[in-house]
Amino acid sequence: MTQALEDFLRRLDREIRAAGDWGEVADYIPELARIDPAQFGIAVALPGGGVLTAGQAGQRFSIQSVSKVFSLACVLGRIGEQIWTRVGREPSGRRFDSILLLEQEQGRPHNPFINAGALVTTDELVTGRAPKEALAEILGFLRAAAEDDDIHIDKAVARSETETGYRNVALANYLKSFGNLKNAPEITLGTYFHQCAIEMSCVQLARAGRVIAGLPGTPQMLTPLKARRISALMMMCGHYDGSGDFAFRVGLPGKSGVGGGILLIAPGRASIAIWSPGLNGYGNSRMGSYAAERLARETGWSVFA
Amino acid sequence: MTQALEDFLRRLDREIRAAGDWGEVADYIPELARIDPAQFGIAVALPGGGVLTAGQAGQRFSIQSVSKVFSLACVLGRIGEQIWTRVGREPSGRRFDSILLLEQEQGRPHNPFINAGALVTTDELVTGRAPKEALAEILGFLRAAAEDDDIHIDKAVARSETETGYRNVALANYLKSFGNLKNAPEITLGTYFHQCAIEMSCVQLARAGRVIAGLPGTPQMLTPLKARRISALMMMCGHYDGSGDFAFRVGLPGKSGVGGGILLIAPGRASIAIWSPGLNGYGNSRMGSYAAERLARETGWSVFA
Amino acid sequence: MTQALEDFLRRLDREIRAAGDWGEVADYIPELARIDPAQFGIAVALPGGGVLTAGQAGQRFSIQSVSKVFSLACVLGRIGEQIWTRVGREPSGRRFDSILLLEQEQGRPHNPFINAGALVTTDELVTGRAPKEALAEILGFLRAAAEDDDIHIDKAVARSETETGYRNVALANYLKSFGNLKNAPEITLGTYFHQCAIEMSCVQLARAGRVIAGLPGTPQMLTPLKARRISALMMMCGHYDGSGDFAFRVGLPGKSGVGGGILLIAPGRASIAIWSPGLNGYGNSRMGSYAAERLARETGWSVFA
Amino acid sequence: MTQALEDFLRRLDREIRAAGDWGEVADYIPELARIDPAQFGIAVALPGGGVLTAGQAGQRFSIQSVSKVFSLACVLGRIGEQIWTRVGREPSGRRFDSILLLEQEQGRPHNPFINAGALVTTDELVTGRAPKEALAEILGFLRAAAEDDDIHIDKAVARSETETGYRNVALANYLKSFGNLKNAPEITLGTYFHQCAIEMSCVQLARAGRVIAGLPGTPQMLTPLKARRISALMMMCGHYDGSGDFAFRVGLPGKSGVGGGILLIAPGRASIAIWSPGLNGYGNSRMGSYAAERLARETGWSVFA
Repeated sequence: MTQALEDFLRRLDREIRAAGDWGEVADYIPELARIDPAQFGIAVALPGGGVLTAGQAGQRFSIQSVSKVFSLACVLGRIGEQIWTRVGREPSGRRFDSILLLEQEQGRPHNPFINAGALVTTDELVTGRAPKEALAEILGFLRAAAEDDDIHIDKAVARSETETGYRNVALANYLKSFGNLKNAPEITLGTYFHQCAIEMSCVQLARAGRVIAGLPGTPQMLTPLKARRISALMMMCGHYDGSGDFAFRVGLPGKSGVGGGILLIAPGRASIAIWSPGLNGYGNSRMGSYAAERLARETGWSVFA
Repeated sequence: MTQALEDFLRRLDREIRAAGDWGEVADYIPELARIDPAQFGIAVALPGGGVLTAGQAGQRFSIQSVSKVFSLACVLGRIGEQIWTRVGREPSGRRFDSILLLEQEQGRPHNPFINAGALVTTDELVTGRAPKEALAEILGFLRAAAEDDDIHIDKAVARSETETGYRNVALANYLKSFGNLKNAPEITLGTYFHQCAIEMSCVQLARAGRVIAGLPGTPQMLTPLKARRISALMMMCGHYDGSGDFAFRVGLPGKSGVGGGILLIAPGRASIAIWSPGLNGYGNSRMGSYAAERLARETGWSVFA
Repeated sequence: MTQALEDFLRRLDREIRAAGDWGEVADYIPELARIDPAQFGIAVALPGGGVLTAGQAGQRFSIQSVSKVFSLACVLGRIGEQIWTRVGREPSGRRFDSILLLEQEQGRPHNPFINAGALVTTDELVTGRAPKEALAEILGFLRAAAEDDDIHIDKAVARSETETGYRNVALANYLKSFGNLKNAPEITLGTYFHQCAIEMSCVQLARAGRVIAGLPGTPQMLTPLKARRISALMMMCGHYDGSGDFAFRVGLPGKSGVGGGILLIAPGRASIAIWSPGLNGYGNSRMGSYAAERLARETGWSVFA
Repeated sequence: MTQALEDFLRRLDREIRAAGDWGEVADYIPELARIDPAQFGIAVALPGGGVLTAGQAGQRFSIQSVSKVFSLACVLGRIGEQIWTRVGREPSGRRFDSILLLEQEQGRPHNPFINAGALVTTDELVTGRAPKEALAEILGFLRAAAEDDDIHIDKAVARSETETGYRNVALANYLKSFGNLKNAPEITLGTYFHQCAIEMSCVQLARAGRVIAGLPGTPQMLTPLKARRISALMMMCGHYDGSGDFAFRVGLPGKSGVGGGILLIAPGRASIAIWSPGLNGYGNSRMGSYAAERLARETGWSVFA
């Protein structure tokens, strides 16, 4: 199986490069707008510790919203189920940066994977301590899960978002006006922008995802129940208003980031990271989504099989 | 395992009856409003043909929206992927009978499991033939899947809905005004009301669901890919705006009906039908949802495990 | 003044015909879709009984939503302020046939001049008697106000709407589902479609409007307070989501119909009817709106002057 | 008439104090939350320069959103009709601080009298110069119109809003994200908070409003066309989602502020300022609205008469 999978990944990489249908990079974060969309990498972490790769699997990229999975994991560790009083668990049916529903729902975001909801979980993490400490917890979680200390924040990307992330500033202040932000908006925003600016390679991200996939021989950082619930949230809300389509095509929980990364969980079987910076209309990686669908079909790893 | 599961079902039945926290029956369909909410039944169909039961598992009830799973299966058999030009695959984030999103989306419903979307699939089934024939196809599918010919439509319930289902009449006419209904609204509506009025017992419904769960030794009526995709849609959209919560708690694809039924799929492992007519705030069976969560926890059958 | 105004009307008529910028006729009512958009008429009823005209001021057209002003007047006569428990008095900020807000507002339409609100007022008129009698009251009001008995319903237009008015059928059934329709939807709808199919010429409509403008020497059919309040509603809601623009440009209360008619009220000074069947993007008469703006500028009849 | 009106104002003042039905003061601006709601003042500026008063007509209060009328007047003087490319002229049908519609409309606010729209006009005023100069222009306009130099900004109120006006910060950043803010959000916001913190008495405000009412013997600061158009906007949008009700009851253009002030325009006849800090459910002065209705009824000053 391992050899067949490795061959498939190599074929997939070649095919994607040949097609050249990359999509366009996000343009609202200047630092990301400069990145060449014609890139692709994939890493598959398997039980027992092996990691198969193809393409630019060692190239670091900005994980952006993929970080929301791990900040949620940290919050669940700190305060557990209490977080659900401040944020829901339902798909939003709208864009990742929608502010509309926040008004209809009186400041309680639909779920922790849209921007408004992630601001709430980060706000919880930064409460009662300095931003640096909150960021250290997230980085610490990722490093321990990936068993790799060489994971850092790209300060230039964080700065770029701080300067131009007007919509996130709007969301944070809007949450604050409803009393659903414990800290000053600029504190929570600063932490959030830095968290999103964490850089990882596909190999690192696939290794970090093993704790959610519950792979044997992985650091025990989440109870099985917590891992299942995070997976459920990824399935329902991980691709914004394209989550239904992703579940239909791929059949696996996943979380995308605007930097072009996707973390994909095949519970008990594999943790997969894919990266290709060109995006589709939902703000998800175009070739990343395609690769996820192909991989799921090839391996039969649908959770619905 | 089978014995332990049977014991659990029996304990669960006793516990639910002791708690007496039944919720309230749907009141907008007069014929359903008369039903005693204090009822509960469960049936678990296993690979190999066995069915475990507890409570009123043999009592027939109106399957209502659970029928949407099977009308979709019939449509996928007839026209395949073309149906997705008329209806989406995304959670709606709104009530099952919402008309609001239909205006925003210009007449293309979010998914085939909210009322507007189910009207579209039924409309497709009735196109080019008489309502009786469309209904015969759905009944035929259910009977073949359940290997039980004693499945029928409750005409009194169908009549009751025809007389008072104003919101569905509104939805059908609204779809028609956007050109997304091929037949006269009263034709599609009549078929839809009859399809929703199909009566089944938990045993029958659990047996019918085996074709989606892909249980060994079941009639081959859906390709594995189709069964997986239907399961994915059930997971994403099967409990309306409570789908995220259901996925989080239960971790299995399910589809609820306002008659109090829930069909639950544990792919490859079991097809489960639960019935309790009292509803929660989302319009899903209150004790049915509770039983689903308990069963999933007891068996470890989450798709995310 | 009268001579100058007459000269202006004639110049305006010539100018509009020369420009040839007519817009397009409504296409969702088959019977109206056939009408030539290149038509224009205007009539100005003055205190003392005189009526100045230009263009096709004697040509009959379907008054459509302009009828809502008079059905409201009849309802205010019958049940007075009670009607406001069923319908609001606020601009809707949305299209005339929007169903979206009806869901947000739980079945209470924003105002009596959007379709949903007009269905409520017509429903009130038909309560406790036959549709024929309700229609006779509206026709009777118009005939008495215009002092002209030759005002009738175009049955072919009424039939055309009955057959294709799916969106109105949706609205009526949706209102019914919220309990805000006293009669069977088809009864209220039938009455509504016939009321909208009343035919009048500009001369007849301008004469009928005198009771709202409160012109001296006019039949006393409305108290001054009622006339003022109807004018206020026309100003706020008479041109759907283009009402603000109309108030800004024209500065007079007006009510448009999809047949291309506009009734314009200059309180105490004149009642004006304009007709040109080509529409703008809001569903209001394109050349009619233009003529209204030109007339208001020429005469200085803004209520804000 | 003057004597009768003066007597009426005195009776009205007594009646309102006797009723003691004051409503509650706005609580989201700490500095305003401390104000005693049991206060009332009214001033009526007449042609020829006379001003009739009753109650606390000389007491200064925070004009808040009433300032939007004058910042719009300044903008129309500077760039004229161009402003309408950035902001609409339609009632919004929603609360004054709604952000929801801004998403639906892609960053173009419905009108210049809701917060989002007023931020756009203030942004235009501060473009190309310092906030101090923009504020000097608004203050200069008010002083010249009122012929009274003793009009100032309450710095404590401005500071209070700067510290807690999270929703306005959200709106400004949201506008910026759509490219509909020319300056840094904090620049526009600072100017806006200071503009809203202008203090005036009823006498000063009534005198300033004379330029919109076009009273004879008033400084010529607006062309008649501009004054009419500002009046039309006040009528359509001056009381947020209670504008229709205000037009129905009062029949005069008006603009309210959350500090409890209302400016009321009877074109050609009077400019009226009313103040009572307790608010109704729409965020408009409770007793101020009542007084406006009573005054309009007493004088017959409806624009629709």
